[in-house]
Amino acid sequence: MLIVMKTDATQEDISRVVEVVEKLGYRAHVLPGATTTAVGITGNQGPVDPAHFENLPGVAEAIRVSKPYKLVTRDLKPNKSVIKVGNAEIGGGELAVIAGPCAVESREQVFKVAEAVAKSGAKFFRGGAFKPRTSPYSFQGKGEEGLKILAEVKERFGLNIVTEAMDERGVDLVERYADCIQIGARNMQNFSLLKYVGRSKKPVLLKRGMSATLDEFLLAAEYIMAEGNYNVILCERGIRTFSNHARNTLDLSIVPAVQKISHLPIIVDPSHGTGKNYMVSPLAKAGVAVGADGLLIEVHPCPEEALCDGAQALTPIQYLELYQQVQAIHKALCEYEEVFV
Amino acid sequence: MLIVMKTDATQEDISRVVEVVEKLGYRAHVLPGATTTAVGITGNQGPVDPAHFENLPGVAEAIRVSKPYKLVTRDLKPNKSVIKVGNAEIGGGELAVIAGPCAVESREQVFKVAEAVAKSGAKFFRGGAFKPRTSPYSFQGKGEEGLKILAEVKERFGLNIVTEAMDERGVDLVERYADCIQIGARNMQNFSLLKYVGRSKKPVLLKRGMSATLDEFLLAAEYIMAEGNYNVILCERGIRTFSNHARNTLDLSIVPAVQKISHLPIIVDPSHGTGKNYMVSPLAKAGVAVGADGLLIEVHPCPEEALCDGAQALTPIQYLELYQQVQAIHKALCEYEEVFV
Amino acid sequence: MLIVMKTDATQEDISRVVEVVEKLGYRAHVLPGATTTAVGITGNQGPVDPAHFENLPGVAEAIRVSKPYKLVTRDLKPNKSVIKVGNAEIGGGELAVIAGPCAVESREQVFKVAEAVAKSGAKFFRGGAFKPRTSPYSFQGKGEEGLKILAEVKERFGLNIVTEAMDERGVDLVERYADCIQIGARNMQNFSLLKYVGRSKKPVLLKRGMSATLDEFLLAAEYIMAEGNYNVILCERGIRTFSNHARNTLDLSIVPAVQKISHLPIIVDPSHGTGKNYMVSPLAKAGVAVGADGLLIEVHPCPEEALCDGAQALTPIQYLELYQQVQAIHKALCEYEEVFV
Amino acid sequence: MLIVMKTDATQEDISRVVEVVEKLGYRAHVLPGATTTAVGITGNQGPVDPAHFENLPGVAEAIRVSKPYKLVTRDLKPNKSVIKVGNAEIGGGELAVIAGPCAVESREQVFKVAEAVAKSGAKFFRGGAFKPRTSPYSFQGKGEEGLKILAEVKERFGLNIVTEAMDERGVDLVERYADCIQIGARNMQNFSLLKYVGRSKKPVLLKRGMSATLDEFLLAAEYIMAEGNYNVILCERGIRTFSNHARNTLDLSIVPAVQKISHLPIIVDPSHGTGKNYMVSPLAKAGVAVGADGLLIEVHPCPEEALCDGAQALTPIQYLELYQQVQAIHKALCEYEEVFV
Repeated sequence: MLIVMKTDATQEDISRVVEVVEKLGYRAHVLPGATTTAVGITGNQGPVDPAHFENLPGVAEAIRVSKPYKLVTRDLKPNKSVIKVGNAEIGGGELAVIAGPCAVESREQVFKVAEAVAKSGAKFFRGGAFKPRTSPYSFQGKGEEGLKILAEVKERFGLNIVTEAMDERGVDLVERYADCIQIGARNMQNFSLLKYVGRSKKPVLLKRGMSATLDEFLLAAEYIMAEGNYNVILCERGIRTFSNHARNTLDLSIVPAVQKISHLPIIVDPSHGTGKNYMVSPLAKAGVAVGADGLLIEVHPCPEEALCDGAQALTPIQYLELYQQVQAIHKALCEYEEVFV
Repeated sequence: MLIVMKTDATQEDISRVVEVVEKLGYRAHVLPGATTTAVGITGNQGPVDPAHFENLPGVAEAIRVSKPYKLVTRDLKPNKSVIKVGNAEIGGGELAVIAGPCAVESREQVFKVAEAVAKSGAKFFRGGAFKPRTSPYSFQGKGEEGLKILAEVKERFGLNIVTEAMDERGVDLVERYADCIQIGARNMQNFSLLKYVGRSKKPVLLKRGMSATLDEFLLAAEYIMAEGNYNVILCERGIRTFSNHARNTLDLSIVPAVQKISHLPIIVDPSHGTGKNYMVSPLAKAGVAVGADGLLIEVHPCPEEALCDGAQALTPIQYLELYQQVQAIHKALCEYEEVFV
Repeated sequence: MLIVMKTDATQEDISRVVEVVEKLGYRAHVLPGATTTAVGITGNQGPVDPAHFENLPGVAEAIRVSKPYKLVTRDLKPNKSVIKVGNAEIGGGELAVIAGPCAVESREQVFKVAEAVAKSGAKFFRGGAFKPRTSPYSFQGKGEEGLKILAEVKERFGLNIVTEAMDERGVDLVERYADCIQIGARNMQNFSLLKYVGRSKKPVLLKRGMSATLDEFLLAAEYIMAEGNYNVILCERGIRTFSNHARNTLDLSIVPAVQKISHLPIIVDPSHGTGKNYMVSPLAKAGVAVGADGLLIEVHPCPEEALCDGAQALTPIQYLELYQQVQAIHKALCEYEEVFV
Repeated sequence: MLIVMKTDATQEDISRVVEVVEKLGYRAHVLPGATTTAVGITGNQGPVDPAHFENLPGVAEAIRVSKPYKLVTRDLKPNKSVIKVGNAEIGGGELAVIAGPCAVESREQVFKVAEAVAKSGAKFFRGGAFKPRTSPYSFQGKGEEGLKILAEVKERFGLNIVTEAMDERGVDLVERYADCIQIGARNMQNFSLLKYVGRSKKPVLLKRGMSATLDEFLLAAEYIMAEGNYNVILCERGIRTFSNHARNTLDLSIVPAVQKISHLPIIVDPSHGTGKNYMVSPLAKAGVAVGADGLLIEVHPCPEEALCDGAQALTPIQYLELYQQVQAIHKALCEYEEVFV
């Protein structure tokens, strides 16, 4: 914590700050500058709340200098985490492709997609049985019946299942039928739910909230890890900005930002991240090129009849073509690294 | 729904759109324009999913023209709703001031603030027993013990209690001790929780999510109302934007926007909306002037020692002064209306 | 400047930072903390570029602690500036209302509005002769002919004229015919133009850019003042955010934020700030209540026939009613201050 | 244009809308729906201003359905434009890499970078002689002296020069010494300047404004083209959002969005787009993978001593490595297309 004094702060103002610092049990370091004086704080174990200082007379600003997260950081674990999901891994050398429909609508629809996904070589299948919909009048998912269809897909095609839970009952069900619990963007700061999945044995795919900063995203993962579940996979799925040519703005710079600070794997969802069929492939390729550990791709046998988010789904044929392309980019990047690094 | 064709759409493309419209059971109206043709849809009961059309050949865009909400609208109930909270009302002629500390920290702290709030003439008291904190290592609230202190405040000062619940267990407890269940910004699209409070008998104060559009905000209220609880009070508490001189950007234009469409009352929270002590009073006054039905104000006996959000709390003295000023503005506005309208 | 080291920074990394600081001629203060070490810099005259440090080994972050502006600040001039515009003032005790059409369309249109403006008691008239339009095919303003009509308004009604200039030729013309040069939001960082009006004798009304931070806004004013023109009036006109119920998001919190740092007056433009007729009055009232020095209001005799921005214009009757209301709020605020402060 | 009526609009309200439409010389098509009636307009040549309708009684919304740009669109020119810049091209099959320092600081600095750029195989060199700086006290560029150094680079290394102009005098000078005039993000809606470069013979590199929508971006290009200069290259350089881990949010989805509508080439600037050295390479690779026609990369011989934006500059060694990688990705994408398309 650094407390910056106003240019007209008096000696008493500075002394008052030092006094408050010492009362809190820390050490104060007065740093006179060209026009303003700053007071540095040391000796604190955890973060210091700026509110202790911001309204004291003569104080211009209180600036935090250390980050509030611990378990997610490379300080704690320098090497990248590889997360086991069913019989496969996310965060290792291979590109993890998780594909499937937005929502489970019927056994037939799901199986058509699963066939394409299995054929492509991908190891993970997605599909929502519980759907967080903006309107209460929209299709809300098929619930446990949908989970059973997903379990059949696992059985039949050997794909590992990733599916969303929206509340505790949902987590209990997802744990029973699937391999990975997805926490949606709208629940990224549903702290009760984060704590609950933190006590689960299954890995968690945590989607970035629509307006979450990097710190908030990492702290949401920290909530899960603080309860004992270290198997967290992060997912960028687009943020909310003024930009209106896509449904969301896919913020790919968070991939290197996360990788610099955290050992957790991060994947990219270009389907929700753009909301437009024709943008999914270009942004999926960009996601691989930026260095993500995997992709989340929506596929529907007949997008124009989808009950949910059809506008962004790829057809199985589009998906298969994309799969080839992203593998080619991934290969080009890996070959380069082998030769030059 | 209006489907806009591309400039180079063929006659077949248009026929294909008409066909899909009719297959869905609606009527299609072809509208040739100067450079582009549009197809209007009528005969639908609820909203039509644009995904049915967006990827058809020759289609440029599918534009929704009717809104997906029903119960929140003035179409359904032309007059403003007045919501009973304990023994007082929100949405009637009087300005509803809900004041109190961010978090319940101790009986002493809460009582000091409650004394000032009661003295001011306000009828509602706020204070959090369950705190949604960005970091798992921050103070998380005192839980049921905190609720008991709030119940004592009600008993002793006759103030009506508004307090947040973050999950189902929390709702059950808040229902027992308090008069109004607050749903925080981070849970605005926690649809499971919205449905749960929709089955409660207590009124709900619903805060706008940090990145919620007007439609999403109203649909979150619609989720609650669709379950049978019509006692919803909306609350603007600042949105997330690039602007960094305040903690959030208080979006006061949503007050007239809500009032145009909806019969629900809406209040303003300048404390979270700015996050800075010195901005709370000016923005509270602005909130009253823009026509809000009330204010949510954080007050702490000693802001620099607060366990949560101290930077934005008013001291009891600042609060009492503010109370006078907002009443003066409210009076000036009402007098004007009596004379001129 | 404060340089925060990574938790795993070595003693050499710290020494290298100290060395760079000293090579730049400043003093370095090493501050060991609980988990991270920080290095404070003093002895600098102006701001230090963080780029000198951000990529050195072991550096986590370089944080600026002093602000780069000088002339705009209350450090330099503690009392509020009162700016003379023609024969009236902005920033004194009186609320400055600047009203008129978005664009000068015809002598008749302008005179109809001017009559209402003069009748209300306002002292300033606005109207654009040079219009910055998003599309090259939209009406671009009447140029010098429009300025002549505005000069007639001044002559006939005694109103002081505020009008926009978009380039140097425009500034020369506006100086000749009008009392105050407006710099539009899109030109807030047109630094060549800022320098040019900085050498003008006429006061400048500087609108905040759509995505300008507080610092950038104040530095744009600093550009003008650094050339010798100290007569700058700031204007909040809405920022660009995800929020889509209004054309822009009026960010009223910038009013107290500016007033805390700067002696310059600041006014509010609820017409561009909302873009919707029905929102202009509520947000104008909020602008006065938040403490702005004045308002910029668009009025058109027949909004539905306006060549530019008709959706946000008030009719003369709506304007006259609004004028009464904002004066009533202003009076209530002033009376309060007389009694209690 | 589609005018949507309120649910309680009367028959007279609808007739009034039809009347206004016909008075404007267009045709009105009344479309009764389930709950609301809409009125479609046809027969208009250009866009219709929604302001004509938005405030009429009974009108809920006026929705634009055709786009206001012409010359930038594929409707006009279905094939992609290839823009000649000096002796090379942008928009053809080859990836265009434009590299160099943010600002021209000295002959020595520029030549060191130019050597690396020429060695890499890139054909374009960038460097600013006129620098738009947020603060009037920051280094503003070396002006004509800087342009002369750039002209020497062209002479010595055969690189084609891209450099920014901020005003008319600057354009005249840049035209004399360089091959391509850059218009910076802050001037994207400086319409006077756009018209001026629209009358130049040199190609223009137009950077997206920090808060520009796709439509505004394309219309800025339209301003240039409408004056007769068809040689426009678009450039995404990051937008302003709440996201704070990078200096800007690089919005790569605009690349496919532009390519769908427009024939103009579009390149990506990951240096300004991220503002952080360690993010430049990953985002540059993403920019190529998303399908951009080229990259704008900042390189400095000694980033920590740069007078401007050092934090985002690559060293020559980092740049050379990046160049290899982006070519590998470009090759992988092209090979794929040859085989499969």
